[in-house]
Amino acid sequence: MDRRRFVTASALGTAALGAAATMLAKPAVAQSMPEVKWRMPSSFPKSLTTLFGGAEYLAARVAALTDGKFKITPFAAGEIVPPLQVLDAVQNGTVEMGQTAPYYYVGKDPTFAFGTTVPFGFNARQQQAWMLHGGGLDLMNELFKEYNIIGRFSGNTGTQMGGWFRKEIKTAEDIKGLKFRIAGLAGTVIARMGGVPQQIGGGDLYPALEKGTIDAAEWVGPFDDEKLGLNKVAKYYYYPGWWEGNAMLWSLINLDKYKELPPAYQAALDAACAETNTWMQAKYDAENPAALRRLVANGAELRVFSNEIMQAAYKATFEVFEELAGKNPKFKKVYESWKAFREDEFLWFRVAENPYENFVYRQSAAEARAKQ
Amino acid sequence: MDRRRFVTASALGTAALGAAATMLAKPAVAQSMPEVKWRMPSSFPKSLTTLFGGAEYLAARVAALTDGKFKITPFAAGEIVPPLQVLDAVQNGTVEMGQTAPYYYVGKDPTFAFGTTVPFGFNARQQQAWMLHGGGLDLMNELFKEYNIIGRFSGNTGTQMGGWFRKEIKTAEDIKGLKFRIAGLAGTVIARMGGVPQQIGGGDLYPALEKGTIDAAEWVGPFDDEKLGLNKVAKYYYYPGWWEGNAMLWSLINLDKYKELPPAYQAALDAACAETNTWMQAKYDAENPAALRRLVANGAELRVFSNEIMQAAYKATFEVFEELAGKNPKFKKVYESWKAFREDEFLWFRVAENPYENFVYRQSAAEARAKQ
Repeated sequence: MDRRRFVTASALGTAALGAAATMLAKPAVAQSMPEVKWRMPSSFPKSLTTLFGGAEYLAARVAALTDGKFKITPFAAGEIVPPLQVLDAVQNGTVEMGQTAPYYYVGKDPTFAFGTTVPFGFNARQQQAWMLHGGGLDLMNELFKEYNIIGRFSGNTGTQMGGWFRKEIKTAEDIKGLKFRIAGLAGTVIARMGGVPQQIGGGDLYPALEKGTIDAAEWVGPFDDEKLGLNKVAKYYYYPGWWEGNAMLWSLINLDKYKELPPAYQAALDAACAETNTWMQAKYDAENPAALRRLVANGAELRVFSNEIMQAAYKATFEVFEELAGKNPKFKKVYESWKAFREDEFLWFRVAENPYENFVYRQSAAEARAKQ
Repeated sequence: MDRRRFVTASALGTAALGAAATMLAKPAVAQSMPEVKWRMPSSFPKSLTTLFGGAEYLAARVAALTDGKFKITPFAAGEIVPPLQVLDAVQNGTVEMGQTAPYYYVGKDPTFAFGTTVPFGFNARQQQAWMLHGGGLDLMNELFKEYNIIGRFSGNTGTQMGGWFRKEIKTAEDIKGLKFRIAGLAGTVIARMGGVPQQIGGGDLYPALEKGTIDAAEWVGPFDDEKLGLNKVAKYYYYPGWWEGNAMLWSLINLDKYKELPPAYQAALDAACAETNTWMQAKYDAENPAALRRLVANGAELRVFSNEIMQAAYKATFEVFEELAGKNPKFKKVYESWKAFREDEFLWFRVAENPYENFVYRQSAAEARAKQ
């Protein structure tokens, strides 16, 4: 951390920044656009070109927005920070920022889960709407602030798949004793259903599943799961991932470091996060269909979770939520905002989006059948 | 257009730009961050705080990203340019950029419709994915280039409502002779079904419907429709808007003016468009539910389009597409890309997103009923 510190522009205001710059007697251009170098460890391996690719895209966009003056270097999972300790490294100031999923930190506080996703929650658009216009982002940043962090969402996967299972799972009874790699609060739900949840970073899933250390693993969806090779060590590919109607990725930024940035660099970072958010979701949506076709062609067997399992999971989920809300006031505050917004979103999406999509997907399925 | 012209940085590259700047013998800061003032007329009235609000948000973000040096002033529909002539004004260089929906210009070329939406097309996420990772944006910019324009998408409404009807519409027969305000290629589909399509700017819908000049009008969805007061002049509120599974708004930028911008300002404009895109969709999603509740409480009667009407419209739509593709090579090229991408997206969304959403919406509807 030997780089030059500069004035806290957001605190001083632009006029004051000008005065401070004059006092420091540097050329004006150096003051308004200082050279800044940051390190950004990711929770994800390089092979995942959509998740880690998002970190690279974000860095490139910040550079473009600042004429190359604000340079962020992404590091893959484990290169400088272990995959599930990115939040800690940002909090400590070991690094200025990181790319991760807040729900990896439910061990510190289950409230973190709302930043990424919770079971039977929002789709990607609803999550965004809650964040930007429903108070979600401010609520999450209240929590992050306790860790000296400011968060910006910067990616999404959309609804995920239910993961890879070595055996078929037909009833809620089949969950009992199942050693299942699953992230976030969903682990607590799986435990309530009698399963044995495991939290493991993406790069370590293949060997765990291969050795039989775990019976099943969920990761993201076709494009990423194929890259991790999960289809080679488990045959049954379940859907939908009822615990991840969306999964939002975040840039977590050390709050002191963020405040030190000139306002235009803060804006560049914020804007690059927004661009990356759209870029990543679009890339998943564009890459998943062909990956799904390849997986099925190579022997993956698609299975839908039975209604019995879905109903049991739904019941267990809201029991867990209510219990957590009863003993954790932070969880309660965010949960109540989330729940009210969810009721509104689901009402509205039942009117316009869902009937539209049901119609076009039915037509499209009928056309696909007619072609065969 | 009396402001200072500066070197075309994207063509020269950064090193060459430095050399050119030295030759011009101006202080370095003026070269890297020149003062730029642009005008941005919108196709939308000020009252529509989500659409026109998007133009204001975009201008604010560009200012934040450039330390206030790049100033864009939005103008509401009709203030300096008529609502449906924004593209022309940008093409002519009367203004540097504008906010509009490309499908307003299907009279020039029906291919423009793909920029916004076409009947039975993508939802908002699928449209984004096609644009960014499916070749859609490049295809649209090939078309815009013929008009000396470069386009950036910068907003979406999501799936729209089917609009306001003075009488109930139960069968395909009821479309015949219907004077219906409807935008884009959907007008051609309505004409094929025997209706009489009208293209009218948002601000003029209320009087047209009130006087009975038209029998029905579609605009966007609850939040905007309520602001235009359409519920006061027509009672039946139909869904879903099968001609607008999404509707993408655009920033159209005069290509010469865009090329004149320093690279960091081009990046700022691009990034602000991406931020606005998410901001607008999120605002619609957050505002629509309460607006829908108010409209229904004030007497609007929700009606779903019958399957007979949906099927007839679907058939008419693809007949229109095939005919246009047969006689317009530009349309054919974009249509084929769109169609292949649509088949992929619909396949994938049928696996993960749609079963997930159907489950949570069913649960949510059952809970709402149980409360009553």
